[in-house]
Amino acid sequence: MNRRNYNVSELRRLDVAHHLPAQSSYRLQQQMGGSRIITRAEGSTVWDAEGNAILDGMAGLWCVDIGYGRAELADVAREQMLELPYYNSFFRTATAPAVELAAKLASLHGGALQHIFFNTSGSESNDTVLRLVRYYWALKGQPERSIIISRHNAYHGSTVAGASLGGMSFMHVQGGLPIPGIEHIMQPYHFGDGFGEDPEEFALRAADALEERILAIGADKVAAFIGEPVQGAGGVIIPHRAYWQRIEAICRKYGVLIVSDEVICGFGRLGRWFGYQHFGFTPDIVSMAKGLSSGYLPISATAVSHEIVETLRATDDDFVHGYTYSGHPVAAAVALRNIEIMEREALVDRVADDAGPHFAEAIGALADHPLVGEVRTLGLIGAIELVAEKGTNRRHGKGGAAGPVVRDACIARGLMVRAIRDTIVMCPPFVITHEEIDRMAAIIRAALDEAVGTLAHLAGLPPPQLLEGAQPGL
Amino acid sequence: MNRRNYNVSELRRLDVAHHLPAQSSYRLQQQMGGSRIITRAEGSTVWDAEGNAILDGMAGLWCVDIGYGRAELADVAREQMLELPYYNSFFRTATAPAVELAAKLASLHGGALQHIFFNTSGSESNDTVLRLVRYYWALKGQPERSIIISRHNAYHGSTVAGASLGGMSFMHVQGGLPIPGIEHIMQPYHFGDGFGEDPEEFALRAADALEERILAIGADKVAAFIGEPVQGAGGVIIPHRAYWQRIEAICRKYGVLIVSDEVICGFGRLGRWFGYQHFGFTPDIVSMAKGLSSGYLPISATAVSHEIVETLRATDDDFVHGYTYSGHPVAAAVALRNIEIMEREALVDRVADDAGPHFAEAIGALADHPLVGEVRTLGLIGAIELVAEKGTNRRHGKGGAAGPVVRDACIARGLMVRAIRDTIVMCPPFVITHEEIDRMAAIIRAALDEAVGTLAHLAGLPPPQLLEGAQPGL
Repeated sequence: MNRRNYNVSELRRLDVAHHLPAQSSYRLQQQMGGSRIITRAEGSTVWDAEGNAILDGMAGLWCVDIGYGRAELADVAREQMLELPYYNSFFRTATAPAVELAAKLASLHGGALQHIFFNTSGSESNDTVLRLVRYYWALKGQPERSIIISRHNAYHGSTVAGASLGGMSFMHVQGGLPIPGIEHIMQPYHFGDGFGEDPEEFALRAADALEERILAIGADKVAAFIGEPVQGAGGVIIPHRAYWQRIEAICRKYGVLIVSDEVICGFGRLGRWFGYQHFGFTPDIVSMAKGLSSGYLPISATAVSHEIVETLRATDDDFVHGYTYSGHPVAAAVALRNIEIMEREALVDRVADDAGPHFAEAIGALADHPLVGEVRTLGLIGAIELVAEKGTNRRHGKGGAAGPVVRDACIARGLMVRAIRDTIVMCPPFVITHEEIDRMAAIIRAALDEAVGTLAHLAGLPPPQLLEGAQPGL
Repeated sequence: MNRRNYNVSELRRLDVAHHLPAQSSYRLQQQMGGSRIITRAEGSTVWDAEGNAILDGMAGLWCVDIGYGRAELADVAREQMLELPYYNSFFRTATAPAVELAAKLASLHGGALQHIFFNTSGSESNDTVLRLVRYYWALKGQPERSIIISRHNAYHGSTVAGASLGGMSFMHVQGGLPIPGIEHIMQPYHFGDGFGEDPEEFALRAADALEERILAIGADKVAAFIGEPVQGAGGVIIPHRAYWQRIEAICRKYGVLIVSDEVICGFGRLGRWFGYQHFGFTPDIVSMAKGLSSGYLPISATAVSHEIVETLRATDDDFVHGYTYSGHPVAAAVALRNIEIMEREALVDRVADDAGPHFAEAIGALADHPLVGEVRTLGLIGAIELVAEKGTNRRHGKGGAAGPVVRDACIARGLMVRAIRDTIVMCPPFVITHEEIDRMAAIIRAALDEAVGTLAHLAGLPPPQLLEGAQPGL
């Protein structure tokens, strides 16, 4: 199946000897004798070096939206690299693909979000957000407006600022995070934090936590609120529609900027080009990555409102921020073609009208399983909550042990999903077929069936944080 | 000259309307009617959309080491993208190019630096450094060892952590930087801060500032020292050899980790694979980017010592850090081939033995010019200090005005160089020919000649910060 002939055992040996994978335990990597080597992919399927096929229910890492194997993107990358492999945008210069991509993104956003700052990753985009909003308020004569409000269990990247904006406590404990000037409020996680409460009332309560915090801090000290329309790495937390409407009203009331982190939701994941369009609010700044290039090359972008840019234009000073690879011509050319493919194949409509509804039906049918407390989907993103007792949100043991069991059973059956504590999450490519969605649902059901017995055996085991993989996943 | 037919005026219009370039004044971008559009490049030359050729004395942005137009890299990118355009390294998986590149980098470092963590940019690599060293000391039972010492005028990136680790005061004022836990000592800038002093004595005085700061903080609170072997964006500040020897001795004395930021110096820029090899010290952690892929695709890497990794392996916990694009297979495949090209063409030796010496001679000959206070080069990096009075380090006016004048005169003559206040810096591709180096020197001399008159006229003008481009450059 593989184009190249890989020496798998040698790659595994080199992996342990020289490679520090992301978000990993290096002891477990060593004990396992190295990582599984993924060598090839096509459509919604990846293959490992041994030739095992795995249906990729995660689109890589929430990113390969148009699916693997797009020769057109490989050709575009090659052509751009032959013409101009690199130039920067620092010194009154720019490259054509960066400018064309900026114009394209502006057209997708419409409205006031007409200005695009390029970065290389979602993390870097959120670093740009932090530096930009503080500079903006300083130019407006309100430098004390420096605090950014985020949410517990949010994910905004892994740089020091990104992890600080994020609300992952297990990340904060490594490295003295969060940095000052960032505060976190409750998340709109109905199943976890509002079980039994009316969903709309809970959503409004969660949103009102923002107003309470703004008042506690002092509105004149709050620069911005940042949130993912649907929290991805937090466990695919889909808020009630009322949530974002209320959030927007509160931000407008106190003059607080709204930042929509669309790194996962953007580019059609929820059935609209951007998550804020689905939820019907208007951000001042938008972070984009992942789906922007479907992960084919690293690139991210920050859309900025006209009002902010007009303020930046009121001074001759440089915005002294930017990265070597801001607007990288090859990455920009690939992102541009990726968007063209999405448009040509009407993939966003496919998410909204075809694959998304089929996914909702197939995955939704798992709600009858005794281990399942809730199934929620929106577009092509979804979550299955695992519970110890049907009809409750009570977890197995202290929580966090069931997710990895079901996930591993899925992977063993040829389906890649993720476990975020006891939530199984899915985020497949937009090109996934109905047959593949059905297969995904069937594999998860078989994994759930198997897990019933496994979880019974686990009952007397040590606390979940000692189990392999039981740490909250990303 | 261009493969594609660009509508330049339309691209300029779109640039102003939609593109926020890096490190720029958006008012000036608008006033200028948009950026210069770079469309094509070959060897050491770039062309703009009008067909003007510019000799690229900066290798893009200190990065296109093997030169433009390498069809081999375009083919590798295409092939890898067809086979596997993306997969992550988060969940006990890895891709072959990432593992192979890690092994290759380990072999280039030799010694204890056998472990590679991948990121996407130099900034992200330094974020990794900050999170890693604090986690390491916490695992060692010394969580209070959290402070990182850097230097004024250092450059370590543009994320919140990167800009904080950096010592650029004009970056710090935008966004409330630096974050806590980072301190800055004097830089080893002999021409600026030690003029007239014995170079070795000055270097030791600058290094001893580290010991003084460690003692002032308390050694048990200092996690690491970070430095570029040669400061790049600070103005190509080449320390006396004694500097790094003393720095290393001080760090070892107090058990402080040494981080070598090789984003510019790495991969042959100084005539050795890494800057620390030139200066003869042994870091615990190394940041790499730019030359790693010669800028053809965004990728960075952090080399970590065996001692640190052994500490990380003493726990089952994840190092909860990493990026979606950590170990991106296409970027890794391109970086691997870039290094192979450097080896096959013996480009590092060429820097040391051929192009570097010729560059030193040709640029060094400019030292006789009345505007030049000092010329310094090492390998293929160099700086020319502009002064108001020969034999002194006195600047024109309040400083910062002369550099942009000479730079703009170079660009008008078809040579891209940078002005960092009143220092003209150069960092050409390793493939630059002797004829091109001679042309570079001739253009700079002509620009200097022209500047003599211009600078006389500037004498009565407003302070440099009000002049276009007079802000310290990056």
